[in-house]
Amino acid sequence: MKFQFLAPTKIIMGTDCIRENAVVLADMGKKALIVTGARSAKANGSLTDVTAALTGNGQEYAVYDKVMSNPTIPCAYDGAALAKEQGVDFVIAIGGGSPMDAAKAIAILARQDIPEEKLFSGGYSPDVLPIACIPTTAGTGSEVTQYSILSNDKAQTKSGLGSPFIFPRYAFLDAKYMMGLPRTTTINTAIDALSHSVEGMLSARAGALTDTLALDSIRGIAACFDAMQRDSLSLEQRESLLYASMLGGMVIANTGTTAVHAMGYSLTYFKNIDHGRANGLLLPSFLRYVEDRIPERIASILTAMGLDSMDGFKAALDALLGEPESLTSEEVDRFSAMAAQTKNMDNCLARPDPKDLPALYRESFGI
Amino acid sequence: MKFQFLAPTKIIMGTDCIRENAVVLADMGKKALIVTGARSAKANGSLTDVTAALTGNGQEYAVYDKVMSNPTIPCAYDGAALAKEQGVDFVIAIGGGSPMDAAKAIAILARQDIPEEKLFSGGYSPDVLPIACIPTTAGTGSEVTQYSILSNDKAQTKSGLGSPFIFPRYAFLDAKYMMGLPRTTTINTAIDALSHSVEGMLSARAGALTDTLALDSIRGIAACFDAMQRDSLSLEQRESLLYASMLGGMVIANTGTTAVHAMGYSLTYFKNIDHGRANGLLLPSFLRYVEDRIPERIASILTAMGLDSMDGFKAALDALLGEPESLTSEEVDRFSAMAAQTKNMDNCLARPDPKDLPALYRESFGI
Repeated sequence: MKFQFLAPTKIIMGTDCIRENAVVLADMGKKALIVTGARSAKANGSLTDVTAALTGNGQEYAVYDKVMSNPTIPCAYDGAALAKEQGVDFVIAIGGGSPMDAAKAIAILARQDIPEEKLFSGGYSPDVLPIACIPTTAGTGSEVTQYSILSNDKAQTKSGLGSPFIFPRYAFLDAKYMMGLPRTTTINTAIDALSHSVEGMLSARAGALTDTLALDSIRGIAACFDAMQRDSLSLEQRESLLYASMLGGMVIANTGTTAVHAMGYSLTYFKNIDHGRANGLLLPSFLRYVEDRIPERIASILTAMGLDSMDGFKAALDALLGEPESLTSEEVDRFSAMAAQTKNMDNCLARPDPKDLPALYRESFGI
Repeated sequence: MKFQFLAPTKIIMGTDCIRENAVVLADMGKKALIVTGARSAKANGSLTDVTAALTGNGQEYAVYDKVMSNPTIPCAYDGAALAKEQGVDFVIAIGGGSPMDAAKAIAILARQDIPEEKLFSGGYSPDVLPIACIPTTAGTGSEVTQYSILSNDKAQTKSGLGSPFIFPRYAFLDAKYMMGLPRTTTINTAIDALSHSVEGMLSARAGALTDTLALDSIRGIAACFDAMQRDSLSLEQRESLLYASMLGGMVIANTGTTAVHAMGYSLTYFKNIDHGRANGLLLPSFLRYVEDRIPERIASILTAMGLDSMDGFKAALDALLGEPESLTSEEVDRFSAMAAQTKNMDNCLARPDPKDLPALYRESFGI
């Protein structure tokens, strides 16, 4: 038994958890930068809960609500400029993975002068604004990770910035914000979470503790498949998904992700396929590949899902995700070449040979 | 689903984990105070591993090796005086719960002037020496908790000091140090860990995440019962116990303990019954009490242990612990009155009425 594990974020879960624990934010500083997208935080009530909590504590805030899906590097610099201009002491991210990931980069860039070409080079100082996260989708797990994934136009992919200094200090998990999520968003984000926990089980850094958390996460997500299909999730089921996605975040914070994420980034960057969906489309073929090499790991995953074969896994994901997008042979080759160069590939318990990647894409996209 | 969870300690587990990760200690400061007992850390190789790591890093150290079982308040002040005199920057605890708990109090007292009568009153400042823990028994879980439990002669019991500032920064888990532990120590400490995970399941603060960790811990400990009985634990089984006891620590860091610990403290303080053994002797009768009120929680625990009834649970613990000590009626009444006044009682999902406590002691001790 050999592993390392770090999950320092304080998790506060429950309906109305922000209102009931507003005092927790009081120790973060005098003024917050709220980092969010243009719409959802206003619509689902989370922004109001946060601003009410801050106002009740006598804290000031500024709002940066320009985070787009798959946030860009300029977005992070933009938010950091506002943070400096407003003299904020801490950052509160509200939204899906995009605002949370942007907020983490902002938390660094607000205190450290890092030129764009060195943004992903590591060596950050601990001088970072403290971060609180309020996820409003159940997928990314970013509320408990040290990762900030940004769209990197120079590298033509998503690039990850990772540092223990950007683990959020607090994660507030309230599933009521998710009750109005569209079916597609619910499915894509849940499959993203599933992918995190499954990839954590198949990572070269998988360990006893991440296995336990991953299996619990996988169990909870699979138990919601039928309700996701019918678009009829109860608050309790939304909580199960939110809890499971947080567990998935804890898992990848320690295991990293694998070939699925490596292969999925091109699908998102070049084909605009949603991140969770991209992972979900790739999962069955990658899992079949792994099953041929380390069948016991796949058996554990299937058992946790209440499935008895990879055929059942493939059928369950197909039902949720529907027909895949079309992919050309040229794209297959280009994306395979890009994925083969990522560090994620080295992180696989069963590492795919670069020459096997095109077949995985082809199987996933039925070409 | 409503819970809070915090487990900020970085866990580094594996054979030779100190030697292989010595560099981790380098960021803790120039000089360490090693806090340990008189003998075991020297005998099992852990002290040598730590001093070699420090020396290799160019760090200095002083050794405070006067921590006794159930460390006293004067011991904590004594260690803190040495820490100040030696000008240390951090604390490394090596041993069972006693050195780790003493080290946490020392970490506070080395930096904060707190008179003895206010030691358990809370309100500590964050100015605390950073702590690394190396458990050499698999029981307490103190390596990942914010608790320091000291023998309190004025209150005639064990008193707990708790603060998020004394969560250890690092826990190094190497089961090789446990290969020479006597059978009784192995059993008593494993039952202490079992008690933590079981009590976490029966705590008013039990939540989804602590339940998951607790059940994994309970499963792992119960799987070693036969080998503990035969005193034939392999390194892998020692690792399972060490992992399970760490999980139990994570659990009680978030749930606190319950009636079992409240009732056990008098057994340790007045009757000198080992802490884990005291808990183990009390567990069956308390679990029967809870089973009458919330049977589903007890069913989960029994299932994780591979047992189908509380009779099986009682038989398994009896086999490991042997005959209980004798207890007088006067002691039963006195200990019941003391336990009834503790906060742990309020922390029970099924809270025993004070008038029920004598019957629980009597059933446990067969009188």
